[in-house]
Amino acid sequence: MTYCVAMCLDEGLVCLSDSRTNAGVDHINTFRKMTVFERAGDRVLVLMSAGNLAITQAVISLLREHAAVQDRDSLWNAPTLFECARLVGETIRGVHRQDAEALKQFGVDFNASFILAGQIGDEPPRLFNIYAAGNFIEASADTPYFQIGESKYGKPIVDRIVTCKTSLDEAAKCALISMDSTIRSNLSVGLPLDLLIYRRDELRVARHLSVDWDNPYFDMIHKEWGASLRKVFNALPDPDWSRWPGEDQLPPCVEVVSS
Amino acid sequence: MTYCVAMCLDEGLVCLSDSRTNAGVDHINTFRKMTVFERAGDRVLVLMSAGNLAITQAVISLLREHAAVQDRDSLWNAPTLFECARLVGETIRGVHRQDAEALKQFGVDFNASFILAGQIGDEPPRLFNIYAAGNFIEASADTPYFQIGESKYGKPIVDRIVTCKTSLDEAAKCALISMDSTIRSNLSVGLPLDLLIYRRDELRVARHLSVDWDNPYFDMIHKEWGASLRKVFNALPDPDWSRWPGEDQLPPCVEVVSS
Repeated sequence: MTYCVAMCLDEGLVCLSDSRTNAGVDHINTFRKMTVFERAGDRVLVLMSAGNLAITQAVISLLREHAAVQDRDSLWNAPTLFECARLVGETIRGVHRQDAEALKQFGVDFNASFILAGQIGDEPPRLFNIYAAGNFIEASADTPYFQIGESKYGKPIVDRIVTCKTSLDEAAKCALISMDSTIRSNLSVGLPLDLLIYRRDELRVARHLSVDWDNPYFDMIHKEWGASLRKVFNALPDPDWSRWPGEDQLPPCVEVVSS
Repeated sequence: MTYCVAMCLDEGLVCLSDSRTNAGVDHINTFRKMTVFERAGDRVLVLMSAGNLAITQAVISLLREHAAVQDRDSLWNAPTLFECARLVGETIRGVHRQDAEALKQFGVDFNASFILAGQIGDEPPRLFNIYAAGNFIEASADTPYFQIGESKYGKPIVDRIVTCKTSLDEAAKCALISMDSTIRSNLSVGLPLDLLIYRRDELRVARHLSVDWDNPYFDMIHKEWGASLRKVFNALPDPDWSRWPGEDQLPPCVEVVSS
């Protein structure tokens, strides 16, 4: 499994990915899920992937090959981030044409999803979520973040905190808390993490950090967040049953079978 | 969708279920997911269900029919909660034999899961998670709770709070917070809720309450929990980047493509 989250904020972009892959719980490996294409002063593209590792690696290898030979249809030459998302989508479709039938014969789904975040030239920073079918959606001020992979455990905290006004530092903190909740609940998501911060209009990566258990900040988050939650939980009053409606007010659709 | 959670604690049992069902987002209805079989002084059985509503209703109707005629193999006559779980499992298998092939022809999975919680006579309170195949597992002191349906959004808070030493009131509070996080993230989980509290060895339901938006305690949880989380979030320090390892310490497996 995998967990990746990216946020598109007024101040720029925050991207965080884990690095665990597994083929069954007895076959766990470390593979980075984040690839960065940077041409300083022109563009920064951050690609994160989830799903079948053979598929996602094939897509990224093809994108890199095309970029390396400065292909007209490459991530270096696409004029907008929308066109980059289309390129990623088309590349996924190419891998699908090549591999999907063979995978199907082995009962393997064509399972892959990508997040593409970045900025090109005068465009604002943009964020896309690209599906296995090669189609994609773009983040907006109302929904300024995307997740791929094991997204549910870490979604409530992002929902409650992140808006496009959130600062880059706060968003990074929130992404790390979201990752910590995910790692706690799903063994197949694991460290080290890649954390990338991009400041709007700089057209170069501001920070690209590897986070492992020896990182004191993540260690603090890991310990303090759980302790703080328990403190907040204890501070909320327990239910005062005397002020609740009694059983006689239960709607008739509640089934109470007595004998 | 559905979200149900049940906790088996030293003090007794806490069960909470939502009541939303949907066949597509344009077809949403309210159906209770909790059925209670109570013979005061002898047994209390709480059955909660998730999955295809036609399947789960068929299972519950059959269990009720058998109970109504005091069938030898009924929930009233089973000597232990383990035997009750087997009865529920056998009933699911009966519905599978009857319906699964027809459903398959319409591309519909045989999707159903149940939680069975309760106490019979001198046994301690017990808690089972019963799968569509009719097999089941039992909660233990290490894992004193089960969830069915849309379980992931509400799992982190239960993981962080609930042990078998948790009091019934605290567990009810935690279940309601877990439900609130789920409702916030998944439209297909909704109020009213059924909350049932069973106190160990009483052999009758202690509280069985219906919770709707006009319930002041749930309204308080809904507002205060989010606000408290934001307060805790703000109280945690932002990352101090000067103390983090720089980019030069990134492992070589991180892909940074430059041009």
